[in-house]
Amino acid sequence: MKIALFGAGRIGKVHAASIKTDPRSELVAVTDVMTDAAAALAREHGIDARTADEILQDPAIDAILVASSTNTHADLIEAGVRAGKAIFCEKPIDLSLERALQVRAVAASHDKPVMMGFNRRFDPNFAAVKAALDAGEIGRGELLAVTSYDPAPPPVSYIKVSGGLYRDMMIHDFDMCAFLFGMPETVMAHGSCLVDPEIGAAGDVDTAVVVLSYADGRLATIRNSRRAPYGYDQRVEVLGADGMLAAENELENTVVRSTAAGVVSAKPVYFFLERYMRAYAIEWSAFVDACVDGTPVPATVQDGVNALALAEAANRSVAEGRPVKLTPVMTGA
Amino acid sequence: MKIALFGAGRIGKVHAASIKTDPRSELVAVTDVMTDAAAALAREHGIDARTADEILQDPAIDAILVASSTNTHADLIEAGVRAGKAIFCEKPIDLSLERALQVRAVAASHDKPVMMGFNRRFDPNFAAVKAALDAGEIGRGELLAVTSYDPAPPPVSYIKVSGGLYRDMMIHDFDMCAFLFGMPETVMAHGSCLVDPEIGAAGDVDTAVVVLSYADGRLATIRNSRRAPYGYDQRVEVLGADGMLAAENELENTVVRSTAAGVVSAKPVYFFLERYMRAYAIEWSAFVDACVDGTPVPATVQDGVNALALAEAANRSVAEGRPVKLTPVMTGA
Amino acid sequence: MKIALFGAGRIGKVHAASIKTDPRSELVAVTDVMTDAAAALAREHGIDARTADEILQDPAIDAILVASSTNTHADLIEAGVRAGKAIFCEKPIDLSLERALQVRAVAASHDKPVMMGFNRRFDPNFAAVKAALDAGEIGRGELLAVTSYDPAPPPVSYIKVSGGLYRDMMIHDFDMCAFLFGMPETVMAHGSCLVDPEIGAAGDVDTAVVVLSYADGRLATIRNSRRAPYGYDQRVEVLGADGMLAAENELENTVVRSTAAGVVSAKPVYFFLERYMRAYAIEWSAFVDACVDGTPVPATVQDGVNALALAEAANRSVAEGRPVKLTPVMTGA
Amino acid sequence: MKIALFGAGRIGKVHAASIKTDPRSELVAVTDVMTDAAAALAREHGIDARTADEILQDPAIDAILVASSTNTHADLIEAGVRAGKAIFCEKPIDLSLERALQVRAVAASHDKPVMMGFNRRFDPNFAAVKAALDAGEIGRGELLAVTSYDPAPPPVSYIKVSGGLYRDMMIHDFDMCAFLFGMPETVMAHGSCLVDPEIGAAGDVDTAVVVLSYADGRLATIRNSRRAPYGYDQRVEVLGADGMLAAENELENTVVRSTAAGVVSAKPVYFFLERYMRAYAIEWSAFVDACVDGTPVPATVQDGVNALALAEAANRSVAEGRPVKLTPVMTGA
Repeated sequence: MKIALFGAGRIGKVHAASIKTDPRSELVAVTDVMTDAAAALAREHGIDARTADEILQDPAIDAILVASSTNTHADLIEAGVRAGKAIFCEKPIDLSLERALQVRAVAASHDKPVMMGFNRRFDPNFAAVKAALDAGEIGRGELLAVTSYDPAPPPVSYIKVSGGLYRDMMIHDFDMCAFLFGMPETVMAHGSCLVDPEIGAAGDVDTAVVVLSYADGRLATIRNSRRAPYGYDQRVEVLGADGMLAAENELENTVVRSTAAGVVSAKPVYFFLERYMRAYAIEWSAFVDACVDGTPVPATVQDGVNALALAEAANRSVAEGRPVKLTPVMTGA
Repeated sequence: MKIALFGAGRIGKVHAASIKTDPRSELVAVTDVMTDAAAALAREHGIDARTADEILQDPAIDAILVASSTNTHADLIEAGVRAGKAIFCEKPIDLSLERALQVRAVAASHDKPVMMGFNRRFDPNFAAVKAALDAGEIGRGELLAVTSYDPAPPPVSYIKVSGGLYRDMMIHDFDMCAFLFGMPETVMAHGSCLVDPEIGAAGDVDTAVVVLSYADGRLATIRNSRRAPYGYDQRVEVLGADGMLAAENELENTVVRSTAAGVVSAKPVYFFLERYMRAYAIEWSAFVDACVDGTPVPATVQDGVNALALAEAANRSVAEGRPVKLTPVMTGA
Repeated sequence: MKIALFGAGRIGKVHAASIKTDPRSELVAVTDVMTDAAAALAREHGIDARTADEILQDPAIDAILVASSTNTHADLIEAGVRAGKAIFCEKPIDLSLERALQVRAVAASHDKPVMMGFNRRFDPNFAAVKAALDAGEIGRGELLAVTSYDPAPPPVSYIKVSGGLYRDMMIHDFDMCAFLFGMPETVMAHGSCLVDPEIGAAGDVDTAVVVLSYADGRLATIRNSRRAPYGYDQRVEVLGADGMLAAENELENTVVRSTAAGVVSAKPVYFFLERYMRAYAIEWSAFVDACVDGTPVPATVQDGVNALALAEAANRSVAEGRPVKLTPVMTGA
Repeated sequence: MKIALFGAGRIGKVHAASIKTDPRSELVAVTDVMTDAAAALAREHGIDARTADEILQDPAIDAILVASSTNTHADLIEAGVRAGKAIFCEKPIDLSLERALQVRAVAASHDKPVMMGFNRRFDPNFAAVKAALDAGEIGRGELLAVTSYDPAPPPVSYIKVSGGLYRDMMIHDFDMCAFLFGMPETVMAHGSCLVDPEIGAAGDVDTAVVVLSYADGRLATIRNSRRAPYGYDQRVEVLGADGMLAAENELENTVVRSTAAGVVSAKPVYFFLERYMRAYAIEWSAFVDACVDGTPVPATVQDGVNALALAEAANRSVAEGRPVKLTPVMTGA
């Protein structure tokens, strides 16, 4: 498969490397509005930097990988559909749930795979939790807890365009809950600004707790913070009728230092690039599988809509100080 | 100090054993409406089984330890105050917040220690978390998570008189939050019946999540289940500005078995008697300290009122499906 | 059972406390050549300080607990046998293997229990390893590794009378190997003075490795150091045909502190009093069981001889720089 | 750098993949006496299968990677030196120490890097132990313990040509001791056949313990078994004057399953390919660094000679049942 990459920034580089790990796919072109970035990435990989239109119109290109800025995702998915390409798109579809539902309608008729980049589904630890849960190892799941802290807050300039914590950061955790427990009935969100007053001044929160209530009584909690001084903290825990499953952090190494000062282990790996490097490669192979073998896409546009609907409900909940019920309208179900 | 014990049931026996661990205190009498139980415990400890009145009127008795059924606590604290005894009373003060506030008023004028048996404050692990937090080891606390699962549900007959999960089980976790973070501004409670339908039929929940919101933006979550097939699960985790503190479970032993079937560690110690055995002894010594040395009581009647007020708010929150604000009336502040 | 205690020093106090934990035994007398120490312990426990002869001749005393200095053990066991008492004696029987074999002969004809205080056999962790090994959980044991480090070296004055590292410290580890794997065929010892030059000047080593070779090919290693700055390090690991069993250290508490400086767990409990407190109580109850119920003594005089024979072989091995074969003469087998 | 690979077997494939991870090196040719294997690997990587002579005479080839069978290593290093190539060679240099010393003499005059493939030096965990030790984090090292168990024994056909456990398996652990503690003064080896009687029938052992004694009193132990049913067990532990460093196993994932049956963690990663995948890539980059930047080779021919000398001494020790002193002749020092 010949792949063209939209976006030569940080996450674009990650995906460029992932494409190389699967012998069935080959990166052949890159485009970015920052032409210098596109040229640099093209040079590094010995490929061409081209315009978006050239790529979309080139029949030799089988699939596009959308890793450009969030506000371009919806348009590029639609353009990719029109051009008949298979599409892998970074989350989110869009900051607007309404726009995402339009994209869903367009993508519904497409006969090529369209996959959303919910990379955590492919993390071997979380995937093992999912597999064990589905295999019935702990009976029916009852209580789910997702802990997800970034090592340090992003610049406030990013906060201003990100759509806010629930849409930019917790969206991964909403997807993790949907992945493990499906879609809830109501969302209750709590949020505070404790880490950086400038984030609060920009109208966002940096510390948040959300409780998802399911129609059958199951409950899920998500805890987010923009700051964990010891590193990226990414854990999941499920209590079920017959036991508990917990995915702990991956550590930088396995060395333990015991001195009079204490018994010191390594810290969690620093951030998402380190933690999810393997997940990005596995995720990419799953997309190639879908393109080559016709296997179902493991993270669909509907999954992207669902996560966005949960974020939208969380925003409303925190604004109104009450639980918000998810409606069929919100998820386009 | 000469001590008389009210209540010769399971928790009464635990306290009888704790009294023996401090050389400054001596168990001299026991009373129970179940006269057989009182006689058996008296025989085992070589002491007398007496009536409640005899004990209260005996000037040789310095302190009473109230470990009888919940509905007697309030009356016995008041009687102990009138009799001029130091008082150690198991939680809760009463199932009714109003009654607890009356007791608080009576106890306020007492010149002897009155202490509530919030045993978890004395668990060496949780106490170490508290000490580290107070010492500023992780800066200001921001997110608190209390996990508290019983190994198996109690009989439904107990549920019917216990006051329900929030008042009988989560009250310890409310106290843990108050111990570590102080009193919150609002309580949002979620509850389900997932473990035993008979518990639901009795009008109670067996699985619950509560979020406490603090005036300064801090957030605390409590997760409860009446069933954890692997044993008593009692953990606390605090994220702060400079790091995280976590108290993990105590295990039955330190043996690890590695075979083709996996790497198997021991389970958490089975239930509260095993887990908090040391805490009960430390707690008792703290009461004796207060009696002998005049040190402040580390778990006051106000602490008992506070935990009850949180349980009351949780009940109201789950009934009305909205966050409930704690009022000064509720805590008698 | 009425018990008299020989020795009011550190280990004597530990045993006095243990005696109280079993309701079937009662401490009634203590003796010590340091009369002040005996008087103090007697006062604390509300008992009499008496002479050794008075105790041995008192028919009301059922058992003696020998916790006096090593050079008195052999004589006191023999005296106890002559006086018809059950006997619990701290390790070792004597520093001389020859003298220990004499004691063995005397004790052989005694119809009351004689038990050696190999406390580690009763540590719940090591006992669980033994139980799992005996239950076949890892098939036949093949490689045994015992790690045993003290937190800090004793004063050199102690080294001079202790009989040296192999007889005073490693003797516990020799017994652990005998407990888990039985008696080996050869002993190869390596020793160095790395911790304290004064220990070397006194003719002893402070760091040692011993390899025990069994007739059937099994191998055991023991590592000893007089200094582990992080605390008392007491671990056992057995590789078997079907898996591995490992007993890890007990920690001071279960709290984990994660900060930018690392992820810090509690240290191992500080020294043998903390680590083996429970073991001392369980050990004592096993002795009372033997006296009351006639169950076999779980640590015999022969076990004491065996450990001493291994220490003797280790001393010879390190002196001669070669493996030393255990002979029937050495163990009196 | 253009690289030619000698050997298209299992380890050859690993190295072919590692070469791709460093953008500065390019695999251009492969050779193997098994021409089918060479052809298959060539096809997979889009390169040519050629003869050894063609490769050695091709001036466009900068370096050779020797991953062919052990009995070809010495000749190929010498041929590579004569052809002026940089050389990366899998361990060991040869099964004969004498032959290895000849190779050392030939390589001594070479002005290009010659590096031995002691991959464990590049494992991030062991490298972190080395770095911490060198940084003085635990003061002077005193006791080193290397645990190294394979998951399952190789076929006996392999044993017959491998040179035996000490030369084929423990050689890695000898190098680890040399890496962390330098070269010892004496070697005491113990070996048994406990895993597979056919291994014993072939004249080898499958279970072994070696103790290395250093001139300054430090001691190191190595434990080897050809079978660990729970997976590849690769640990290192160093006790020093100020503390302990321990590198624990890497696990398959971080998931913990707690049920009534116990608390189950993932097993260690299965074997060396999984455990040392990252180490192979880091090792290769270190070789490229040496070629490109002239940095010192981190695993020299002398290191290869040293490990072989320790294996030779171990063989002699186990045959003669006594400690064997390393001589300058043995290490060519």
